[in-house]
Amino acid sequence: MADKPWAGRFGQATDHRVEEFTESVNMDKRLYEVDIRASKAHATMLGATGIISREDADAIKEGLSSIQTDIEEGRFSFDPGLEDVHMNIEAELSNRIGDAGKRLHTARSRNDQVATDLRLYVRDELVIVKKGLVSLMGEILNRAKAQQNTIIPGMTHLQHAQGVSLGHHLLAYLEMFYRDYLRFNDAMTRLNVSPLGSAALAGTPHPIDRFMTAEELGFDAPCANSIDGVSDRDFVIDAIAAACTVMMHLSRLSEEIIIWNSQEFSFVELPDAYSTGSSIMPQKKNPDVAELIRGKVGRVYGDLINILTTMKALPLAYNRDMQEDKWPVFDAIDTVKICIEMMTGLLNGLVFNHEAISAALGMGFITATDIADYLSKQGVPFRQAHHITGELVASLIKQGRTIGDMTLEDFRVYSDCFTDDILERVSDEGSLKAKTSHGGTSPNNVSLALDKAEDLLHHLCNEA
Amino acid sequence: MADKPWAGRFGQATDHRVEEFTESVNMDKRLYEVDIRASKAHATMLGATGIISREDADAIKEGLSSIQTDIEEGRFSFDPGLEDVHMNIEAELSNRIGDAGKRLHTARSRNDQVATDLRLYVRDELVIVKKGLVSLMGEILNRAKAQQNTIIPGMTHLQHAQGVSLGHHLLAYLEMFYRDYLRFNDAMTRLNVSPLGSAALAGTPHPIDRFMTAEELGFDAPCANSIDGVSDRDFVIDAIAAACTVMMHLSRLSEEIIIWNSQEFSFVELPDAYSTGSSIMPQKKNPDVAELIRGKVGRVYGDLINILTTMKALPLAYNRDMQEDKWPVFDAIDTVKICIEMMTGLLNGLVFNHEAISAALGMGFITATDIADYLSKQGVPFRQAHHITGELVASLIKQGRTIGDMTLEDFRVYSDCFTDDILERVSDEGSLKAKTSHGGTSPNNVSLALDKAEDLLHHLCNEA
Amino acid sequence: MADKPWAGRFGQATDHRVEEFTESVNMDKRLYEVDIRASKAHATMLGATGIISREDADAIKEGLSSIQTDIEEGRFSFDPGLEDVHMNIEAELSNRIGDAGKRLHTARSRNDQVATDLRLYVRDELVIVKKGLVSLMGEILNRAKAQQNTIIPGMTHLQHAQGVSLGHHLLAYLEMFYRDYLRFNDAMTRLNVSPLGSAALAGTPHPIDRFMTAEELGFDAPCANSIDGVSDRDFVIDAIAAACTVMMHLSRLSEEIIIWNSQEFSFVELPDAYSTGSSIMPQKKNPDVAELIRGKVGRVYGDLINILTTMKALPLAYNRDMQEDKWPVFDAIDTVKICIEMMTGLLNGLVFNHEAISAALGMGFITATDIADYLSKQGVPFRQAHHITGELVASLIKQGRTIGDMTLEDFRVYSDCFTDDILERVSDEGSLKAKTSHGGTSPNNVSLALDKAEDLLHHLCNEA
Amino acid sequence: MADKPWAGRFGQATDHRVEEFTESVNMDKRLYEVDIRASKAHATMLGATGIISREDADAIKEGLSSIQTDIEEGRFSFDPGLEDVHMNIEAELSNRIGDAGKRLHTARSRNDQVATDLRLYVRDELVIVKKGLVSLMGEILNRAKAQQNTIIPGMTHLQHAQGVSLGHHLLAYLEMFYRDYLRFNDAMTRLNVSPLGSAALAGTPHPIDRFMTAEELGFDAPCANSIDGVSDRDFVIDAIAAACTVMMHLSRLSEEIIIWNSQEFSFVELPDAYSTGSSIMPQKKNPDVAELIRGKVGRVYGDLINILTTMKALPLAYNRDMQEDKWPVFDAIDTVKICIEMMTGLLNGLVFNHEAISAALGMGFITATDIADYLSKQGVPFRQAHHITGELVASLIKQGRTIGDMTLEDFRVYSDCFTDDILERVSDEGSLKAKTSHGGTSPNNVSLALDKAEDLLHHLCNEA
Repeated sequence: MADKPWAGRFGQATDHRVEEFTESVNMDKRLYEVDIRASKAHATMLGATGIISREDADAIKEGLSSIQTDIEEGRFSFDPGLEDVHMNIEAELSNRIGDAGKRLHTARSRNDQVATDLRLYVRDELVIVKKGLVSLMGEILNRAKAQQNTIIPGMTHLQHAQGVSLGHHLLAYLEMFYRDYLRFNDAMTRLNVSPLGSAALAGTPHPIDRFMTAEELGFDAPCANSIDGVSDRDFVIDAIAAACTVMMHLSRLSEEIIIWNSQEFSFVELPDAYSTGSSIMPQKKNPDVAELIRGKVGRVYGDLINILTTMKALPLAYNRDMQEDKWPVFDAIDTVKICIEMMTGLLNGLVFNHEAISAALGMGFITATDIADYLSKQGVPFRQAHHITGELVASLIKQGRTIGDMTLEDFRVYSDCFTDDILERVSDEGSLKAKTSHGGTSPNNVSLALDKAEDLLHHLCNEA
Repeated sequence: MADKPWAGRFGQATDHRVEEFTESVNMDKRLYEVDIRASKAHATMLGATGIISREDADAIKEGLSSIQTDIEEGRFSFDPGLEDVHMNIEAELSNRIGDAGKRLHTARSRNDQVATDLRLYVRDELVIVKKGLVSLMGEILNRAKAQQNTIIPGMTHLQHAQGVSLGHHLLAYLEMFYRDYLRFNDAMTRLNVSPLGSAALAGTPHPIDRFMTAEELGFDAPCANSIDGVSDRDFVIDAIAAACTVMMHLSRLSEEIIIWNSQEFSFVELPDAYSTGSSIMPQKKNPDVAELIRGKVGRVYGDLINILTTMKALPLAYNRDMQEDKWPVFDAIDTVKICIEMMTGLLNGLVFNHEAISAALGMGFITATDIADYLSKQGVPFRQAHHITGELVASLIKQGRTIGDMTLEDFRVYSDCFTDDILERVSDEGSLKAKTSHGGTSPNNVSLALDKAEDLLHHLCNEA
Repeated sequence: MADKPWAGRFGQATDHRVEEFTESVNMDKRLYEVDIRASKAHATMLGATGIISREDADAIKEGLSSIQTDIEEGRFSFDPGLEDVHMNIEAELSNRIGDAGKRLHTARSRNDQVATDLRLYVRDELVIVKKGLVSLMGEILNRAKAQQNTIIPGMTHLQHAQGVSLGHHLLAYLEMFYRDYLRFNDAMTRLNVSPLGSAALAGTPHPIDRFMTAEELGFDAPCANSIDGVSDRDFVIDAIAAACTVMMHLSRLSEEIIIWNSQEFSFVELPDAYSTGSSIMPQKKNPDVAELIRGKVGRVYGDLINILTTMKALPLAYNRDMQEDKWPVFDAIDTVKICIEMMTGLLNGLVFNHEAISAALGMGFITATDIADYLSKQGVPFRQAHHITGELVASLIKQGRTIGDMTLEDFRVYSDCFTDDILERVSDEGSLKAKTSHGGTSPNNVSLALDKAEDLLHHLCNEA
Repeated sequence: MADKPWAGRFGQATDHRVEEFTESVNMDKRLYEVDIRASKAHATMLGATGIISREDADAIKEGLSSIQTDIEEGRFSFDPGLEDVHMNIEAELSNRIGDAGKRLHTARSRNDQVATDLRLYVRDELVIVKKGLVSLMGEILNRAKAQQNTIIPGMTHLQHAQGVSLGHHLLAYLEMFYRDYLRFNDAMTRLNVSPLGSAALAGTPHPIDRFMTAEELGFDAPCANSIDGVSDRDFVIDAIAAACTVMMHLSRLSEEIIIWNSQEFSFVELPDAYSTGSSIMPQKKNPDVAELIRGKVGRVYGDLINILTTMKALPLAYNRDMQEDKWPVFDAIDTVKICIEMMTGLLNGLVFNHEAISAALGMGFITATDIADYLSKQGVPFRQAHHITGELVASLIKQGRTIGDMTLEDFRVYSDCFTDDILERVSDEGSLKAKTSHGGTSPNNVSLALDKAEDLLHHLCNEA
């Protein structure tokens, strides 16, 4: 090929470039702690079952501890030439303790080792994500409590629909994040089986005790099928899919904050630490944190498509494609953790501008539905009540008046069913108070919901 | 704009085109049954709580039943001018029973109605998907039982690695589909709360009983927050995400069948009904069904991205964007149902070609790992045992021999640890028998796994 | 399996279900016209090259014409038992004209036939999409022209940044849609080669003339490699990817319209035909069309992931997975066509509320940057000019004043560089007029841009 | 919140965490060179137009050069406290050269600066990607030339269909990668306009010359609309979308190599440097590089969904979400570059196993279509010729014979049309030779295609 003009720097790819391409240690070195934890459990079991001597098992565990210390204190340098975190640690172990080190890999393969490590890592991280969700829910609860009596225009289609308690509105997010919390719980239950002992794919002739290692590592059980043990990455997909839903929920809240923060809405003022100003426009507070959270949704959706695409149509058992499982799950978890934390802080410092909210409430005809409901409670068929209300509002608009300007007599022009309680019912407070159906926005309901949320949070904190 | 050349057929968009664009009845008419079911529950409750008279409630339910019959018997024609399935049915109800019909929508909004309907629909469909998974698992179990003693080359990197029981290999898929089953269970638990009574977004002043409608419709409880009730589409995402994982698992099995069906492998022969031939090449059996299943993975992944994208950054509460929730969930469930069914039938008729499988097994050095394991069981450090085996195999290759040609003496050239049981250990059967670790491929393990699977299937059938 | 409880309705999958699963005629029947067009070109060529007689060629073409007429007049019923549109038409042709019909498929395979048909279909559709884009651009131009002198608060981070001409703002969208137009042009250039004559994958021994059929069908050339000819679906990906970008642009415009339509902004009033009201809240105009366009972005993104996933890792040449190429491209094109049309009509009827826009402009300190620019033009280093302006604005805020309240003396407190032209420069009009840099928002620039856009539109209309 | 149990480490988020969240310098520091290049062009123009003095312009350029040298020699440390690469460099510039440095940002905003930088970066990278594609195409051409006379079983449905030249098969990939090359060309044309001078969003009052900076930076023109200039990220999407198609093509080739490398196929032997062995199974060559390339498809698809999702529904003009544009485009380009390089090297070292390929060819009835074509050339209607061939092959299978065993008399049992040239026509070589249609697999065609490819490659090399 040498004489062809297109023989450039490619084509002579040396081992070195291939090594760079195939190595994973720069990505997977953050698994060092779980790798060592799993290796210690394996060594303990090998010693307990007599597959290796107890002395060797002890030497291995001590060696691994010293390596861990060195890594944590920055004295260990990972060598991409040794491909991955697993070989880096095992090679160093043999360096340090000789033959005993070479016995660690007995009855184990990199296939089950990496599957075990990644499960441990993801499990640990999901515990942190769940704690973050609890803090976020706690913050939402605090803000909802403080704002339970603030009435905001509840929107559909970003149009004023009906007045709702701001506390009630915020509690809708608490529901979302609690579902996310439960989704992670489900993911963890399915994740929590141990592939260790599946060996390459077929199991091993050594008399290992997979229940012992599973228990030692906090797994509920060993996985039932060795081929599935090394081929399964569902737990990665579950974790990222759950992260996608969290991010989606965060993006909805971010969008509201960004819109509320516009000069036109002015419903909120952002905490200084969570926005950037402009040195020439000090009145401007850019909602950067909310925007970045919203912007990072794409990242986590992308991580999900990444792993789903990678796993498509792979024959059993292990294929090297699966090395690509790490980046998406690391990235999705890192992203969701920091976004949860940022939203918690942002909410904490958010100031609601009651004057602007109140002005918005007064803009329109937000209690029109209450008129229709009033009539239908008096026996007017709902669709007819609806129609009467329409005429009433249309006429007000023509006259440049609003519902608040109406007297009882004005109402009775439209129907004899109106009595003087109608005036209270079409006030913002009266309208709110009337929404007494379970889960509705009446002050009493919201107060009960806050109590229930407080109980839930206490329970979740104790659980965590 | 009339005089501009770019004023073409666009720009004069009439109401008619907008109506076509915004109507959803062509999509959502398949919700008719759940819509009627939910409306009946609502009417019963309205009657029981005195919000409407019992007579009206009864008239509504009878009217709805007659409409349902007409739809099922093809006598009902949906009118896109009435936008959606809900308005079509309600309008017809008022036609049929007059004022009582106009009372049905009391204390209800399309926002909670559509959320309720879709939950009911998805729940019903997931029950069918779960039954399909159980049938598929049953078929896998049957085939695994019949093939438990067939040894195939277990692969990693599509390379022969170690011999495994074909039954064991198939049971790996049973594990996958059982996880899918559990994933749908989790999705259904989170789905199973009733948004009915959330009304537009704020609740309602009518004294409704949301617990009564929830119970009537088989929900575990009413949802706790009315705004969340009408804004939440997590249950759609959960259902599609679970469908993605099923499809991914199916694509792996499809890929294996396609490869096994190549002339070069010839591990399987396809059932006639599940393949197409070529009229000029009767020996050719195209694995169309497996290819189409594999090809449809993209469709369901696309459905997931669709709904995730749609929900990104929507402010609370209902937005018309959410009307687009139907297509992806309908399509994903339709696709996963038929693909599960097709795979079940395909497996049922698959014939394994033992001769070809056996020939493949004999190709190489598939028991090499057993030699290393043998040595390490004699106390040779694993990494050293590994090294010795490598030299042994390399030398065989140079001589054009395989492990099966080795005598005990040949073995002892490499290590004194070898005794005469080595010959049995490196036979395909001996190698298999030795993989006795929990979840490994030894005949005894596989037999136990089959029994366990049979118990599980009996349990799932009773549950369903 | 009969005695097992999990032997349900699955497992006995009959040919009928498989037929339903594998048939595509319900999807691909919309290809009938291009299929007939391509078959006629093939027949003409077969006749011209003497592969079949001219009489047979003529009989085939007449037969195809009569079938086309029957389809168009609703007299043809497609039979799923014949799998696809191609076999339906060919079978009917043989019915009608006997042996000549059986000669049509000479030197052709379904593999090259379907690839040819789909290219023709996509090409025709992209012409329509491009026309739609031109109409949309024309509408944007009209609205921009009418609003060139309206100043709106230009936003970054949804915060007031600097005043801009509304015409200039709208022309930004014209740029986007023109890029989309060019993107479709590029896609069509790459698409426009003819796979016809690739046969199954290897070419054919018949002396066909691929240049003749290519020319007859309006292709630039036959494709160069027969295997690529039947395996390539890049043109499907290109079309959907271009549709994704259009949808993304439409979603940005939709988002702005939805926000502008909120009561708080009130920058626009929607045309009645493009919004839904509420019969009880006549003042409410839900921006349904804009929301649905925004909601349909997910659909087209999903279509892209669909086809990309399907094509991943398919070995050459044709695989049945590729039958799944039709749905995503049909759906993406249908969606983008109607969304473009809807946006065109929506824009056409949009009324800008100058009073509200003007009120928003007056809210703040939107000309603060002009002060900094003014100073830096006088030689003050930009970062320092920036700093001085910050102090000035901060002081105004403390005093409850705005820039509009400032006198020259007020300005000169901060710097001697200010002379009396500063007052003009910080007016909304003065600020706008000053943005004279190429592509900036000054009236003169905008006027030039409008002229250029008008020329472009005339050119595109002539081209189309 | 202090007394609540859920007040954990979140909620007290300090400025420090927010700073970490919002900073981008760790991501965007690789833009340093293009940032400096663009700043120099801006400074030159500011000097030339008299907006700043020529002395200041020169000082700025010298200062920037010295910073660039320091960065390249590892003497510059980026400070996340200064947010991004742009502020890091500008702050250091002011440090070094004082007031002149503070004038650099005159008539510029970070919004147009970052848009300009990213375009320059992507453009440079796409040049490298295109060079990589040319090298890959060159390698394909070399291998195709060497294997033009090797006949392999051409597959559809991974089933033997017709014999094709291996060279012809490889040239199908050359077509794919050439389309990718052209797709990048199109992307670069659309990318190549300069946003510099759009300022924040509205343009600037300074008398800048945007044509001068555009030309200096190699752009075709300044972009036409300042708002579009800072809001447009289509060029990022175009680049990633083109990368997706490359990856899809690479995944198809990888899949073939992986299948060909199975023991059952054994069509290829992998170069040592591009595969990993197993120390105990030296006969095993895992196709790691091909698997990793296939596995990385998901990554790039994910990058595309990432940016598409991020851009969905963003109002004009700049939003902080857009900071998230960098990761996906960096990752997609990095990935596609290395994967192209790796595939080039892998192909270069691939050894085709002619014995195994030849054995596969002999397995079946791969020339059956030739019999049908033969008959139809004699005037038998194609569908009938098809039918006769089917009977013939079915009968051979029943007798355990293949087409190669047939004598002329055997053929004439089925039709009188057969004459003695049929024997040549059904040989592998005869069959191949007959596929003379343009783009078909006949030796002559392939030879012409190779010549044309060689011309193309020479042309592309000169162009690059």
